[in-house]
Amino acid sequence: MAKQDGDKTNEKAGLGFGTKNYHKNTRFLNRDGTINIRRLDGDFLGRIDIYHSLITMSWKRFILMVLSGYFSANILFASLYYWAGPHNFGNLSHKDSLHEFLDLFFFSAQTLTTVGYGYIYPQGTLVSSIAAIESMTGLLTFALATGVLYGRFSRPQAHIRYSKHCVIAPYEGITAFMFRMANTTQNELIETQVKVILAYNDLKTNQREFEILPLEIDKISFMALSWTIVHPIDEKSPIYNYTKEDLIKADAEFLILFNAVNDTYSDIVYSRTSYKGHELIMNAKFKPLPRNQRGNKVTVDLRKLDEIELLG
Amino acid sequence: MAKQDGDKTNEKAGLGFGTKNYHKNTRFLNRDGTINIRRLDGDFLGRIDIYHSLITMSWKRFILMVLSGYFSANILFASLYYWAGPHNFGNLSHKDSLHEFLDLFFFSAQTLTTVGYGYIYPQGTLVSSIAAIESMTGLLTFALATGVLYGRFSRPQAHIRYSKHCVIAPYEGITAFMFRMANTTQNELIETQVKVILAYNDLKTNQREFEILPLEIDKISFMALSWTIVHPIDEKSPIYNYTKEDLIKADAEFLILFNAVNDTYSDIVYSRTSYKGHELIMNAKFKPLPRNQRGNKVTVDLRKLDEIELLG
Amino acid sequence: MAKQDGDKTNEKAGLGFGTKNYHKNTRFLNRDGTINIRRLDGDFLGRIDIYHSLITMSWKRFILMVLSGYFSANILFASLYYWAGPHNFGNLSHKDSLHEFLDLFFFSAQTLTTVGYGYIYPQGTLVSSIAAIESMTGLLTFALATGVLYGRFSRPQAHIRYSKHCVIAPYEGITAFMFRMANTTQNELIETQVKVILAYNDLKTNQREFEILPLEIDKISFMALSWTIVHPIDEKSPIYNYTKEDLIKADAEFLILFNAVNDTYSDIVYSRTSYKGHELIMNAKFKPLPRNQRGNKVTVDLRKLDEIELLG
Amino acid sequence: MAKQDGDKTNEKAGLGFGTKNYHKNTRFLNRDGTINIRRLDGDFLGRIDIYHSLITMSWKRFILMVLSGYFSANILFASLYYWAGPHNFGNLSHKDSLHEFLDLFFFSAQTLTTVGYGYIYPQGTLVSSIAAIESMTGLLTFALATGVLYGRFSRPQAHIRYSKHCVIAPYEGITAFMFRMANTTQNELIETQVKVILAYNDLKTNQREFEILPLEIDKISFMALSWTIVHPIDEKSPIYNYTKEDLIKADAEFLILFNAVNDTYSDIVYSRTSYKGHELIMNAKFKPLPRNQRGNKVTVDLRKLDEIELLG
Repeated sequence: MAKQDGDKTNEKAGLGFGTKNYHKNTRFLNRDGTINIRRLDGDFLGRIDIYHSLITMSWKRFILMVLSGYFSANILFASLYYWAGPHNFGNLSHKDSLHEFLDLFFFSAQTLTTVGYGYIYPQGTLVSSIAAIESMTGLLTFALATGVLYGRFSRPQAHIRYSKHCVIAPYEGITAFMFRMANTTQNELIETQVKVILAYNDLKTNQREFEILPLEIDKISFMALSWTIVHPIDEKSPIYNYTKEDLIKADAEFLILFNAVNDTYSDIVYSRTSYKGHELIMNAKFKPLPRNQRGNKVTVDLRKLDEIELLG
Repeated sequence: MAKQDGDKTNEKAGLGFGTKNYHKNTRFLNRDGTINIRRLDGDFLGRIDIYHSLITMSWKRFILMVLSGYFSANILFASLYYWAGPHNFGNLSHKDSLHEFLDLFFFSAQTLTTVGYGYIYPQGTLVSSIAAIESMTGLLTFALATGVLYGRFSRPQAHIRYSKHCVIAPYEGITAFMFRMANTTQNELIETQVKVILAYNDLKTNQREFEILPLEIDKISFMALSWTIVHPIDEKSPIYNYTKEDLIKADAEFLILFNAVNDTYSDIVYSRTSYKGHELIMNAKFKPLPRNQRGNKVTVDLRKLDEIELLG
Repeated sequence: MAKQDGDKTNEKAGLGFGTKNYHKNTRFLNRDGTINIRRLDGDFLGRIDIYHSLITMSWKRFILMVLSGYFSANILFASLYYWAGPHNFGNLSHKDSLHEFLDLFFFSAQTLTTVGYGYIYPQGTLVSSIAAIESMTGLLTFALATGVLYGRFSRPQAHIRYSKHCVIAPYEGITAFMFRMANTTQNELIETQVKVILAYNDLKTNQREFEILPLEIDKISFMALSWTIVHPIDEKSPIYNYTKEDLIKADAEFLILFNAVNDTYSDIVYSRTSYKGHELIMNAKFKPLPRNQRGNKVTVDLRKLDEIELLG
Repeated sequence: MAKQDGDKTNEKAGLGFGTKNYHKNTRFLNRDGTINIRRLDGDFLGRIDIYHSLITMSWKRFILMVLSGYFSANILFASLYYWAGPHNFGNLSHKDSLHEFLDLFFFSAQTLTTVGYGYIYPQGTLVSSIAAIESMTGLLTFALATGVLYGRFSRPQAHIRYSKHCVIAPYEGITAFMFRMANTTQNELIETQVKVILAYNDLKTNQREFEILPLEIDKISFMALSWTIVHPIDEKSPIYNYTKEDLIKADAEFLILFNAVNDTYSDIVYSRTSYKGHELIMNAKFKPLPRNQRGNKVTVDLRKLDEIELLG
């Protein structure tokens, strides 16, 4: 019954993950923010989300798919024209079957892309009908491609780089859990927010627990430079007095949820990552990023984002 | 005068539905989330929202519409060309009227799709003008099709599956109303929220009442697996001590309103459903979904979402 | 120094309109929601927002603009081709200058739309170059048209109809200011919110004042049917004990600001209107809208939205 | 440990800028809202955000890029055709190499734009294949152009003009920091919000500090006219009793963050600027903007936005 602490009353740190204690080495979020869950679904075939795949696949695979789709479509239509009879075309080369098919293949390409030179041209109802269907198919397919290309480019995305390690170290009199992040694109991120959830096994109850870790600062107006997130480890922190070994034993995972407004497109972007116990370094702090100023312009070198120095 | 309970002061569970007591068997929301209301409007003809229809109709109907629209447009323009005189075209077959019309039909298709082979070509001002209008019409229509296709694919949508039944059963010491839901797509849903509104007839006042049911947890950070929503039935609950028969007699309807952020496109998606009294099972609980772990990857089987077991 | 009333502390009902007392018959908002302000700006010419105009103009004007743009572009390019020399084209009719120009006009249309029959074709560097530029211009223009058409169709819009009159009448023991509104489209509106601001001249201070009127209910989950907005006129209301004549004398204007989520596209839509004193009817109430139920489906007749009945 | 003042608890005025004391004449934000930070990144080459550049570059540069891209693509494909052998084309001029290349250049343009007159046409497998690839490349490129053009036009943007100077002057009994702003487009801005952050060097601690300045009004329903933002300088203000020289000495920068809903497209737009000490005028007030009313329509002259008058 979660109703005890003011504003956050009904918000659960839980992930819909349940509280069953998992094997060691569970990782809910990968470093790149993908979730380690696969959902089996009865109507799976009815639901393959083609658009989702087209939008999220790599550019390399996307271009390969476009090219092979174009090639296959032309093979298909060339075969249809061949089946309907090559003699139904004007100016077709009739040297041999191969040349007939090749010419039909190129006629198909000219039709699909609506370039339509017309040197080779369809005659008669059947092949003209197929060509009419092909040109419309072509237009709709390229209409679709337009949408997909726009969708790929305009998709709201944050390109956040997180420091390779998180640290626990003395900080302003007490001890704190810290990691560092930065925006690696030319877009400015504003109204930047971060939330840190700790997932761990409670060794007494044998349950997986989730707790939101309070942060020193969880919202900033700009993320122009890097941002070091600080969770002060006081007596109320669930990891008060924990060693690195304790965290590994509890199979702890620090889940990092980030969102901001991308200033260029005014849309909200999300990013996430996680740190496991073995990615934690005790008693270390992040080295300040090299910065220099020329006139009003400050340059910051994000290539040193991961650099830490061990304390005493 | 609704001002009594803090934050929700002015928010009404009401649905703009009024409080007149309806006949039995009213259902406001269907299982698929559509609303059982039809609005008659004087300016209806002026307002048929074509874009809305094109975006929401089924793919089957959409493709049928595109094909029949393409066919009709070509019939229309072929008729115009025929009316303007088939002799105004170069290379047209003049075997008979049918062949003339067929050739004009294919010339129209070549013009509308801008494939323009040019074997058949317009000569003279009238047919050239019609062709000039047709090619522009074609381009604008396919421009529209591009927009509609993009709109269909990119429309924010949640594909939530709700358990077939809801249950009332003992839960952590007290009794609770529960149902289960899951995301059936590859997209991750984050910042997931749910609201449950109970609509029922107050048998004393003969009014239809609406109340927001407080939930144990109404917001989670991820909906990676399934989510069981729990309304604890304590003394303050409007259905405290109700039997299934009481709920059916009061024509109760549990309205479920869901929203989340679709992580792939960063947009907010909505879903809703409802449960009526006859879809409630007393004294039953949902069986845990089969899950297994290979390395970090946890697989969950959503095909068992509906499975319940009756309690003693 | 506005800091006195809790949550709304720093939110001003003010409209950036200042408090200078205007002539009688000021109207800030028209019934259709447009604002009666025109901004003169030094860089006006540099800022004419073409896209804004293309998106918001009527369909009739838009189609007229497309047609006349198409016609003008072809006249322009035909003139260029004519200037470059009609003898540079294959198969051009050379009967007379008019026929030459007409043929060049149609060649231009075939190039701009990329239909390119090729019966008439350019020969030589100059006309081929112009044609190369024209076909690219055509493609980019139609690309633009695609965007504009999509923008026009997908623009978030609420089609709210407000009752012709507002009323002040007895309501549940006290008196209330009321008006009625309904959604006239097939889209469902959810998370519906309304705000009513009263603008009036304070006759003592000779200042124009703005006050947010508290509403009985200012947010509903659905706006499936009509919604009657109620401002209870108690002692704290700025119009307590006002007559219609008082409101007219104070040049009162009730500004109605509405927003909701359009369920089909998951975007937020805004609507607004205003009522002036002469659109107020005292001592009247809205007639319930005719409704009937067939099975689960309830039909409501929005054509009667304006109907009121005078009370004793 | 920032937890002391209610709602704003965890929101930091900080900019991710750190508190190291910079040289004099630091400016975080330029007048046009761009940020004076450059981020060096190891994977920079892998991340050049082409779409971002295409969307944000000036129209002049964009059109230049499109034209030179079109020209280069045709040069490239013409070279390929030339390499593959000009004798593989029907109707090609063979006068000399230059004319051959020119004809291939125009054939390429006809293929890329899919206009495809067909007077010149490819024969044989190799050149037909290149042409098939070129026409598809053309379609995809123009698909991309469609997306980019739509992205450029539909990008949410606020065109806010800020007064050239800010002032500190007596205001309603106390002293206040003020500046003025206005919307210069035909779009209406609603739900307008502003935040002012003061960045300054604390001369005692030698740290750069950031503080949110409380405003008299920080949210208005409409920004139909101009809006004068007022920070009352009472004892709690960090600039209480500061002179202009003190502000310059502390290298003070007033950061202005603005957002609103653009009523035409229902999207949120952001704008920002900053004022440095030398842009402040003491003891001056903004002249009221000339306004006149014809019927209901009020005209306001934004060209006088910067005009101030010095007080006694």
